Amino acid sequence: MLFFTQCFGAVLDLIHLRFQHYKAKRVFSAAGQLVCVVNPTHSLKYAPTRCAAAQASTEQGILPPCHHHEAVHDPQLVPCTCPLFSCPWEGHLEVVVPHLRQTHRINILQGAEIVFLATDMHLPAPTDWIIMHSCLGHQFLLVLRKQEKYEGHPQFFATMMLIGTPTQANNFTYRLELNRNQRRLKWEATPRSILECVDSVISDGDCLVLNTSLAQLFSDNGSLAIGIAITTSKVHSSEADM
Amino acid sequence: MLFFTQCFGAVLDLIHLRFQHYKAKRVFSAAGQLVCVVNPTHSLKYAPTRCAAAQASTEQGILPPCHHHEAVHDPQLVPCTCPLFSCPWEGHLEVVVPHLRQTHRINILQGAEIVFLATDMHLPAPTDWIIMHSCLGHQFLLVLRKQEKYEGHPQFFATMMLIGTPTQANNFTYRLELNRNQRRLKWEATPRSILECVDSVISDGDCLVLNTSLAQLFSDNGSLAIGIAITTSKVHSSEADM
Repeated sequence: MLFFTQCFGAVLDLIHLRFQHYKAKRVFSAAGQLVCVVNPTHSLKYAPTRCAAAQASTEQGILPPCHHHEAVHDPQLVPCTCPLFSCPWEGHLEVVVPHLRQTHRINILQGAEIVFLATDMHLPAPTDWIIMHSCLGHQFLLVLRKQEKYEGHPQFFATMMLIGTPTQANNFTYRLELNRNQRRLKWEATPRSILECVDSVISDGDCLVLNTSLAQLFSDNGSLAIGIAITTSKVHSSEADM
Repeated sequence: MLFFTQCFGAVLDLIHLRFQHYKAKRVFSAAGQLVCVVNPTHSLKYAPTRCAAAQASTEQGILPPCHHHEAVHDPQLVPCTCPLFSCPWEGHLEVVVPHLRQTHRINILQGAEIVFLATDMHLPAPTDWIIMHSCLGHQFLLVLRKQEKYEGHPQFFATMMLIGTPTQANNFTYRLELNRNQRRLKWEATPRSILECVDSVISDGDCLVLNTSLAQLFSDNGSLAIGIAITTSKVHSSEADM
């Protein structure tokens, strides 16, 4: 009996995901645009000081280890910049992608333009939605985070990080686009390197920021569809082309 | 001597404005795009409850009077939706434009695309930057407001209101665009009618919202240039054209 109940639950989940997928396809109907349903990742804890020592290592191409701040004993081990909290892993840039895929089961999508469909936006902060995006010969990490910067007022922060060095990141431009309810919001910027701290990008607000009411306006049935496009950074060579 | 000092001060102000104007022109170099320098208007007081009774009158085409909430005696006189605070004026839609021009000396600009250059972004909240924009046979009011929604954390809110009814407003789409420091932020929406309450639009966050650090990234020498474009609302007839 329990088996059948579980099967029925799984079928219902599949129908729900399929429904969300079609809803997103309706909104993002550009031919060939891939829609990816992204479920939330609960962050166990936010350590606000863990970014402090991370900057020194960013230009050396060493990915700081994913330790809690309290666990750092060796002065060579700097606090975590990996957006997945409570992960004790450490490693160089080349092995970040296999680590994220295998250990954290983060999906990787191909294509210059994809749609990131974050589900369950109502979940309490802090919550992350993460996906990897492979295009133009590189891998990128999109992080959407729900966080209470001001107590009692959760906000959504979305940014794109290159799994590469800051110099490599400067060659690209990413665009995040929301479009619903007769409103459209576009954010374009140079991606940050994963060697920089995603926490500081978000705490500085140097990313796409949405308050809860705006996120609700852009959401459909509790899911937020974000169109993502990555190009080489010719777009920003001149700021005069508005 | 005092006369010469004042003259010198006025010349310096002119040079400063001219300098800002050229800076904005450099950024917004599209041919024929008009750059307008907008100085701040200090709001004397924000009365958070003054919007409560304003909704009832919006569909009747009557502009609620610019009274403080405490001064309303006649039940026909609803609290102010005029973005200029502490103004005792009241009147119908047809006379709003002459009132704003003559009494409050708000500039009116012509053209489908203009650049709004708000000066002195460092001034403490609450502060408003306001301009009228005439195009497509209608007048619009752009309001940029610096306000502390969360104490100690001022934010910037920008919205466009049609000096007309909500039904007329539905025929248009406005776009606000910021472009600087390898970042670009675009907001597109249907303008709200001036008969609706600008305070509630801003308190709901249903507008372009910038935190202080992002406003600084987009600012140049303390001035924020916002590109404005208004079109008829064909753009939003389908949400599938991302």
